[in-house]
Parts: sequence; structure tokens; C-alpha cells
Amino acid sequence: MKPMQVGLIGLGTVGAGVFEVLRRNQEEISRRAGRSIEVRAVSRRDIAKARAMVGGAARVEEDPRALIRDPEIEVIVELIGGYDLSRELVLEAIAAGKHVVTANKALLAVHGTEIFEAADKKGVIVAFEAAVAGGIPIIKALREGLTANRIQWIAGIINGTTNFILSEMRDKGLDFDVVLKEAQRLGYAEADPTFDIEGVDAAHKATIMSAIAFGIPVQFDKAYVEGITQLSATDIRYAEQLGYRIKLLGITKRREGEGVELRVHPTLVPAKRLLANVEGAMNAVVVNGDAVGTTLYYGKGAGSEPTASAVIADLVDVTRLATSDPQHRVPHLAFQHSQMRDVSVLPIDHVVTSYYLRLRVADQAGVLARVATILADAGISVDALLQREADEVGGEGSTQTDLIILTHQAREGAMNAAQEQLQALPSVLQPIVRIRKEELA
Amino acid sequence: MKPMQVGLIGLGTVGAGVFEVLRRNQEEISRRAGRSIEVRAVSRRDIAKARAMVGGAARVEEDPRALIRDPEIEVIVELIGGYDLSRELVLEAIAAGKHVVTANKALLAVHGTEIFEAADKKGVIVAFEAAVAGGIPIIKALREGLTANRIQWIAGIINGTTNFILSEMRDKGLDFDVVLKEAQRLGYAEADPTFDIEGVDAAHKATIMSAIAFGIPVQFDKAYVEGITQLSATDIRYAEQLGYRIKLLGITKRREGEGVELRVHPTLVPAKRLLANVEGAMNAVVVNGDAVGTTLYYGKGAGSEPTASAVIADLVDVTRLATSDPQHRVPHLAFQHSQMRDVSVLPIDHVVTSYYLRLRVADQAGVLARVATILADAGISVDALLQREADEVGGEGSTQTDLIILTHQAREGAMNAAQEQLQALPSVLQPIVRIRKEELA
Repeated sequence: MKPMQVGLIGLGTVGAGVFEVLRRNQEEISRRAGRSIEVRAVSRRDIAKARAMVGGAARVEEDPRALIRDPEIEVIVELIGGYDLSRELVLEAIAAGKHVVTANKALLAVHGTEIFEAADKKGVIVAFEAAVAGGIPIIKALREGLTANRIQWIAGIINGTTNFILSEMRDKGLDFDVVLKEAQRLGYAEADPTFDIEGVDAAHKATIMSAIAFGIPVQFDKAYVEGITQLSATDIRYAEQLGYRIKLLGITKRREGEGVELRVHPTLVPAKRLLANVEGAMNAVVVNGDAVGTTLYYGKGAGSEPTASAVIADLVDVTRLATSDPQHRVPHLAFQHSQMRDVSVLPIDHVVTSYYLRLRVADQAGVLARVATILADAGISVDALLQREADEVGGEGSTQTDLIILTHQAREGAMNAAQEQLQALPSVLQPIVRIRKEELA
Repeated sequence: MKPMQVGLIGLGTVGAGVFEVLRRNQEEISRRAGRSIEVRAVSRRDIAKARAMVGGAARVEEDPRALIRDPEIEVIVELIGGYDLSRELVLEAIAAGKHVVTANKALLAVHGTEIFEAADKKGVIVAFEAAVAGGIPIIKALREGLTANRIQWIAGIINGTTNFILSEMRDKGLDFDVVLKEAQRLGYAEADPTFDIEGVDAAHKATIMSAIAFGIPVQFDKAYVEGITQLSATDIRYAEQLGYRIKLLGITKRREGEGVELRVHPTLVPAKRLLANVEGAMNAVVVNGDAVGTTLYYGKGAGSEPTASAVIADLVDVTRLATSDPQHRVPHLAFQHSQMRDVSVLPIDHVVTSYYLRLRVADQAGVLARVATILADAGISVDALLQREADEVGGEGSTQTDLIILTHQAREGAMNAAQEQLQALPSVLQPIVRIRKEELA
């Protein structure tokens, strides 16, 4: 069979990786796919750089639309990122009857519904393994490997930059700002790290996984997103003493009869869980299904060749699936298009989780009793408590201490109300630190 | 589309799980597959028990061949295990034009080549996700998720019984025999545990992964297989002191230009690796590919519903792939049939690995020098050394001590020769304990 012709839009880090791995492993990949995969043309704004990169091995175009117009090209690989131009190009490629492979999580988390509908109508495939957790084949696991299960929840370390920062903070006892600068110096964080450190990138990925796990539309606009910029070395240390590590997790959870939770935030995880031991820039996703129990998938979540690994796996999938009846081949979001359910993401107030609280309190008799009463009245039960020896602070020998509380599960709305009351206590001297906690059992 | 009709041969633990999960998650599974999956008939030698289990929900047959003859049945699920009857039934099902789903690793590790050839000729699918690592979708990851890669090596904890025993031995400092009895009492080990504890079950699974990873025929007869029965609590403790844990690993490795390693044996693994922290009856497989780097897949490797999860995922795959051109859909062993290579598994003498050695030696001057000289002359370099304080033993105040050596990589043939010389030293008082070691970096 003749080679599958690919058009590569965007030739940055990932695009270069795709080009290089397709070249290096050409023979191995053809042996698997049954036909070779050839990059017929690439587009990049900087044509000179593109030419230097591909040599004479592929046509170079400035205009990405020239690739979409090329009748020989069967698959468009979109690697330019962003929401707008990428959306136009992907929709145009679909309209031209081409399959699409993309690594663009932002695009799919926001415009996924529109894009998948267009693809379903046209009978083409939009594949996006590289959009979540880089080289880890987590989309395939969710969409094909775990189809027997009612998936209960997913929790993942799906942003390498923040996991690197948190690992360094814990290892070296340093605060966020210091480590961020180091991460930028080492290339683990971008010059503008906002999307990573504020949790937006993780939320894009969690949104996609949520849709696939539960057969619901992508709902990025309803995701709760909280980054790691407020975390201090102090809380990482206290968590450690209580047997927990703090990770930025993307979490999505089925709440029978109520809806779906979709949230990204720093989370205490028991130190004995494998997930808690995922260090540095590595990614890992835990999936809990009712039949299989807990499974975990670990690997590099970013970088040129790990991401290229996922893009090329999608290209091979296209060669393998393209001949099957579009009505029955693997659906884009794991569930048949007609079988998607309009289940809503719950507001954060309705989320049920447990909590770590740190209260800076005056070292006076009765403080603990007042704190405990407020929590009990709110129906929030205490799982563990750590009170530090008082340190002398301020004038006239007045002392302060840290009171650390781990709670059992509670509804976030109830916790908010209780926290407001706690904060109003005169003996609570500083803003309360609150971090969510998940047992992931 | 009308429901896909399934015939279930074998209704033991896994069969019951398949029946139950298909029933419980019927709606979820149909939403994914685009058609419902119905068990039309089951066969089991004990018909009364089968009737009690399925009620009126499926026809019950004593003769499995009655299912193969049923023209309405599209897929045969083979869950009886063993080599002979299962081989006959699977080949007959293929000949009758039915797709086959099997959890039978022994069958595929030994008769896989014959079975896949027959299926390819007939244009039917033989799916076997459940044959390796239970509910973990590792076959899918290897065959579809990592197709961009030259896979370099795989190392897996792929037998839950032995991992449970090793975890308990380490936790409680107990010897093998004691823990085996406990495992049998708890149902983690069978009454006849030979296949598990001697490494045969793990070797079946490693054989299948090897074929998929490298595009070579299954070669179970050439696998090196060593179980855990000789392991002592002493060596587990010493390994711990040196920063390692001992796991029974199934390993397969590409050795460029030479062949493929395929071996199962107890292995020291650095304690900081996630794989070393997989405890109890859990399974995990690490795969290293040239583009993606190291990925890991973790979950339950056995049990009724975890295994059923994999069987049903295969059934859904059949609904999704059945309409595609047999020449281009996912090949059974990841590589197109015509593209398999006849690469041989290397004899164990040619394997390259590093080693843990424990020598019980007389506490005399010069012993260490003699040991070091023998290793150096054999070209085996020492990575770490641990000499215990001498303990007084025997008459006339003669003392003995343990000398623990970790070596760098060496060819096993060279190590065998060196070990023979070491053993012949008069000051080496007991048989040398040798355990292989892998860094898995």
C-alpha cells in the first residue's frame, strides 16, 4: 500500500521531534503500520528555519493552508497550539476530508465539542493522544483499555513544570519563588509560566480526560482551577510529618446522581501511594474503575520525543482505523457520539473532599476547644491533629503556635462556612491555610 | 445494530467476572461500543453450577463445541486455561470464522505462532489483553500506544502471588516457606503454587510481551526461568541495606545485532524506582522506548473483575475493529504478519546484567584480595561492597563473615566462570548466593 502522506503544521519542539522520530524509526513504524508514513510537507512561519530542519525531505510552506489544500495529504498534524488559528485550521482540514492529529489540549478543552462533531459528520478521525500526559498512552487506556468499567475517578499529575517545582520545594525546603526561578533557568518552566503554575494547563488536560471517562461534553469553563503559587515550604514540611506529599492534581470524579467533579488544585496525597512518589517533571495518572480497581500510568508528560511518540502513535492508529466503518470505530470521546450525556460539572461548593488546615493561633487555653467546636457544629470531623510547641513571638512573652488539622470528607460549602467562623476567632492570628487532601484509595 | 453474541467457554473465577461485569455495566459498555454485547451461551463441565450462576440469562452447554457451532455467536471467549483442549477449541473457533478473546497466557506463549497465523489467514481477531497483567491495558500500550518507538526493554512484576510473597518476606523478615503457607491460607497462592513460584507464569507473560515489543515469534521454550523458592530473608535484608528491593521480574531486552534477552528471575531493583514500590499482589510493567523514554503501567494483575475488565475491553475492541480491513487493522503481535523477524532469544550465558553476590567467608586476612582478584581477572568490576562484622562460629574461636558484592554489568558466562573460581577458594565456606540486579534507569 502506498505511504500515508502527512502535512505537519508547526515545526517547533514537538514538530521537530515528530520529524526526527519518523525518520529514525521509519522501518520499525512501517513494520507495525503496514504502510510507511511520510511527511510530505511542513509549514512554519520562519521558512528558513524550517528548510534548515527538514532539508530536502519535505516541501516547506509558509502558509499552513497550502497543506490542507494538497490533495495528496491524508492527515494534518496540528502542532501550533493556541485556540484561534488552530481551531480554524483543524476545522478546515476536517472539512477537506482529512484526518487530524493534534497535541493541542487548550484547543480541545475549549472547542472539542465543535471539532469532534465536525469530524463525526465528515467521517474523519481527530486523534489527540499527545494532548494529555505527553508520551503516556492515557487516552488510549481510557478510551479503549478500560471500556468495561464505570470509571469512578481520575487523579493525575499532568503538568511536569509544577511537579518539578513541588519536588524541588520538598527536597530542598525552598519556597515557591526561589524554585520557580531555578526551574526557568533549567528550562523546566517557561519565561511566562502562568498557564503551568496557575493550573490552567492541567485543567485543559483534566477536562479532556473527564469527557472521555464519563461520556460528557468538554466543560473547561466549569473546571475549578487553583495553582501552586500560594504554597509554602512550611506546609510541605507539615504534610510530610503527617505522612503526605503535596502534588498539583487534576481530578475528575463521578458523583452518582449529582454530576461530575472537575478540579485542579494542590492536594495532599498519602506518601505511600505510587502517585506521591512521582518526582521531577514526570507525569502519572491514576484511574479508578469499578471492575479493574485502581490503575496507574506513568511517564514523560512533555518534551520533544515523548510527545512525538504520542503523535506518531496516533498516525499509526489512523492507518489502522481508517478503513473501518466510521459508525463503529473507536469514538473520539470513548462513547458513541449519540450516547454522550449532558451531565454537568458541579460547582466547587458542591465538591466533597478532605482538608489540611493550618491555623496560626495564640497559645492560650481554650483555643483548641473553640476550633474543634466550630468544626463539629459544621459536621466536619477531625482525622488527625498536630500542635507544635509554642514559639515565643512578639512582645510581653506572648506566644503563638501552629495548629494543623486533617479533616475527614466534607462538602466544600460547609468547609467554607466553618473556615469563615474559624478565621473570625480572635485567637486565630493569620489567614488560615487550607489545602485539599485525597486518599486515592 | 444488533447485539454482538458471545459464547463463553469456561465459567470459573474470570468467567463469572465477565458475566457479572457485562451485566452490571451493560449500559455503559453499549454506550461505548455502539452495540450491546450479550452472552448467548456458556459452557462449563459442571452444568448445574453454570445454571445456578447464569440463571436464565444465557444458554448453558456441557460441550464447548456447541458454542463454536452456534451460527449466531460471533465471538468465543476462551477461559478454560491449559494448553491442549484450549488450543483445539481456539483453532476450531477460528476455523469457524469466529473472533476469539482469551486470557490464556500459557496457550499463547506456547502455541501463539500457530494460532495467530490461523487467525490472520481466516481474517478473524484473536484478542488477549487479559493474558498479561490482568486488568492493566499493557498489551494495548505496547501494540498501539508505543508504535513510534524502538522498544529497548521491558521489565515487569507480572505475577501477583510471588510479589505478595516477596512483599511479606521483606515486611516481616520471614523466610519463603513460612510466607508461602500464609499466602495459601489467604488465597493469594494456589494449593499447587508451582507455576507461580517457579516463575513459569511470569515467563509465559514475558514471552508474549517480548513478541509484541520486538516483532518476533513467541519463544517460550528459549526463556530462562528461575523462581523465588531459593530466596532467603537474609538477602532481602542485605539488599535493603544497599538501597535495593528484590522483585521477581519478567525481563525482555533488545540486544542490537545479537538477539533478544528473555528471562524471569529474582532481581535487585533500586528502592527509589516506582517498580520497587509495587507491593502485595499488584502488578506493574515498565517499558523503555527510544522516543518516549521510560513508562510504567500499574494495576491488579489477577482476580475476577480486573481480568474481566481486560476480557471485555477486548470484546469492545472487536466491535470497533471488526469492520476494518483485516490487512490493515491492528496486527495481533503489533507488527504486520509479513513483517515479523526471526530474531532469536539469547541463551542465558549471553545475557548481560549486574549481580549481587553473598559469600560466607572465613574471617582471615587476604580473603577480600583473593575475591577481588578473581573478579578483576574476569573483567567484572565491583560497584559496591559490604562486609559485615565477623560473628563467632564453630570451635576454637574461628569466625566467619558475610561478604556482599554488587557488580557492574557483565556477561553471564563470564560471571559463571568467576563464580566457580570463587566457590573453589578454601576460605569460601558455603555455596555463594547470586541474584541478578537491574538498574532500570
